[in-house]
Amino acid sequence: MKFATRTQKTGHSGLEDLFAASGPNVISFAGGYPDRDLFPTKQLNQAFSQNFTSGDRELLQYASTEGYEPLRAKIAARLQTTGMQVDADDIMMTQGAQQGIDLVARLMLDPGDGLVVEAPTYLGALAAFNAYQPTYYEVPMQADGMDINALQRILMSRKVKFIYTVPDFQNPTGVVMSLAKRQAIIRLANQYDVMILEDNPYRDLRYTGKALPTIKSLDTEGRVIYLGSFSKILSPSLRMGWLVAAPNLLKELLALKGGSDLESSNLVMHGINTYMENNDLDAHIREIQDCYREKKNAMVAAMKRYLPEEAHFTNPDGGFFIWLTMPAGFDMGAFMKEHLLPEANISYVPSTNLYATAALSNGARLNFTGPSLAQIDTGMKALGAALKVALQHNLVAEQA
Amino acid sequence: MKFATRTQKTGHSGLEDLFAASGPNVISFAGGYPDRDLFPTKQLNQAFSQNFTSGDRELLQYASTEGYEPLRAKIAARLQTTGMQVDADDIMMTQGAQQGIDLVARLMLDPGDGLVVEAPTYLGALAAFNAYQPTYYEVPMQADGMDINALQRILMSRKVKFIYTVPDFQNPTGVVMSLAKRQAIIRLANQYDVMILEDNPYRDLRYTGKALPTIKSLDTEGRVIYLGSFSKILSPSLRMGWLVAAPNLLKELLALKGGSDLESSNLVMHGINTYMENNDLDAHIREIQDCYREKKNAMVAAMKRYLPEEAHFTNPDGGFFIWLTMPAGFDMGAFMKEHLLPEANISYVPSTNLYATAALSNGARLNFTGPSLAQIDTGMKALGAALKVALQHNLVAEQA
Repeated sequence: MKFATRTQKTGHSGLEDLFAASGPNVISFAGGYPDRDLFPTKQLNQAFSQNFTSGDRELLQYASTEGYEPLRAKIAARLQTTGMQVDADDIMMTQGAQQGIDLVARLMLDPGDGLVVEAPTYLGALAAFNAYQPTYYEVPMQADGMDINALQRILMSRKVKFIYTVPDFQNPTGVVMSLAKRQAIIRLANQYDVMILEDNPYRDLRYTGKALPTIKSLDTEGRVIYLGSFSKILSPSLRMGWLVAAPNLLKELLALKGGSDLESSNLVMHGINTYMENNDLDAHIREIQDCYREKKNAMVAAMKRYLPEEAHFTNPDGGFFIWLTMPAGFDMGAFMKEHLLPEANISYVPSTNLYATAALSNGARLNFTGPSLAQIDTGMKALGAALKVALQHNLVAEQA
Repeated sequence: MKFATRTQKTGHSGLEDLFAASGPNVISFAGGYPDRDLFPTKQLNQAFSQNFTSGDRELLQYASTEGYEPLRAKIAARLQTTGMQVDADDIMMTQGAQQGIDLVARLMLDPGDGLVVEAPTYLGALAAFNAYQPTYYEVPMQADGMDINALQRILMSRKVKFIYTVPDFQNPTGVVMSLAKRQAIIRLANQYDVMILEDNPYRDLRYTGKALPTIKSLDTEGRVIYLGSFSKILSPSLRMGWLVAAPNLLKELLALKGGSDLESSNLVMHGINTYMENNDLDAHIREIQDCYREKKNAMVAAMKRYLPEEAHFTNPDGGFFIWLTMPAGFDMGAFMKEHLLPEANISYVPSTNLYATAALSNGARLNFTGPSLAQIDTGMKALGAALKVALQHNLVAEQA
């Protein structure tokens, strides 16, 4: 009994490690968890209750693959404020943005097809893509987004189906792609006839500075598929995201969604829709921004205070993550497994899990939204102390 | 910009037709819809509210790919009563049984791999399988389940990865696989080293007679993957099903589920779990059985009364569907599209959508659980009248 060839890559996604690094006694900087104290539990209870008692006899019935129209209309209205030309008919609801990644890969990729990803990139996207056996081409991340020259060299010489990017507060580096690069990536996509998958779950979570236009809003040829999610601005437990695509793409994606899970939960879509009718989602997002801004600032301050000078780290304008880099040769995965986790009960995501093919080992993704302010201080203090010991004793040098 | 090869088959699943045939003025026998008056709305409201107000700060957080343990334990306890050796650790939660079908295909199938399906079979399963480009081998359905001799001939001469079967109240024929055939299919799977995917969403909905053991309960080599669902016994809008598999398979399936949508809704799993703690699910199922038994009997009586003698139809012991057969040469799809739907606003699923490769056109799947008793009478009366006209004038003979 032989499994499909894809299982040679899908068996070890790094997602398991991530959950394993989140045990009850661990201070986890590993997960991409929202602060649990920010969930609008009372308001969601009110919204669900209102729907349960509304007398709507279709609430618990099968509905449609594209999803509840009033909710899609509300999402469209929000996206229009980012400059996107979009209405409810351009949107399909998904099981978080994660399902959107899976369905776009399913739409586009035959085994061996070229796929451009950022290096490093979101490990869940790699887990989704691996099931479709692409040929990966990696574009290094720079402080203003992916290296556009490297991207152009790939597109000139390789056959590529699509480019996967997280342009706002990238997972894992926290980087925002500049406007010039957003314009350049659209030009290149048009020139080389490729698609762009714009994954944008953190867009609303900006703590300083001004938002840039989405890549989708610069798209004139229907080449950008846009993914959004309620996971980070309401609750991940709702498992509700959305996908925006041109009609010819959306038609195919709807058929693939139907085969995949028929439809998303009508009950949950109604719950979110009623929540949005009864509450000011933007006010809730501002509350989240205030909390995460404070946590981010506390984390950066603690890292400055406690970490050895060999450690470099970003100070992102938004999102969930700080990117930590140690000197070349330092193995952040081995350091965590052999020292930090057993000795100090602290975890993060080592960079080795965050590349499609390269495996740089001296980086780490640190989440600052899930832990409390106290945990941030305790955690960074212990991380700093352990890093200093490791550096002093040269404990975790990479195997040459 | 070329889509993946799979889209040559996934673009036209028949699922779209099914939704299209369910408009507001249509009496639909097409969908596989539960009776909306049976949803335990009040009890689910109570369960969700109880959880929202419990003070559980993890309710709205990310949780785990396998799903909420207390719910999996309750499902395991129910499955043990069918003779299955199973505990919570053998179970993974899915987005309805549909996602289970998709994930098993993803685990097993490379393009071109052999896959045995019943003929006819569930159209949603074909929609899922088509994305993995299998080579289909069809086994004709008989009154006691798939033709085991035909299955053996296929397994002797072809390389097959797995056998897909709906053994209880098959979708679309309503047939129950006999115990002898359940034992035979296990023997053959062991002998020819193939897997069995046992899709069993209707098992609890038996209206007459005694339940047979699940195929999974006869499995001694970990070859059967079992799918169940809350869609038909609680609500399809919850999008909650489950999958039972041997540990080596479950490990791979969990990684594939992670890449596909990370996890199912923690909120919804808690809701179902609390519902099951506060209510007697078996009593609720007996209420459903009583309602559907009455509807089924009414439908069979109406078909006997109104349909022309050329029409043959089943009288199933459970499930959702009656299978209608007209004489060879009669095109049930053309009849519906050209006459029944425009002239009488009545729909069903024509058999042409229900075969992997064959396309027998003289059958139809009629659902009796969704429509009301009044609609069943009105619908069968109109269907009978239209069929008589069509037969008399030879309106919808198949193209020779």
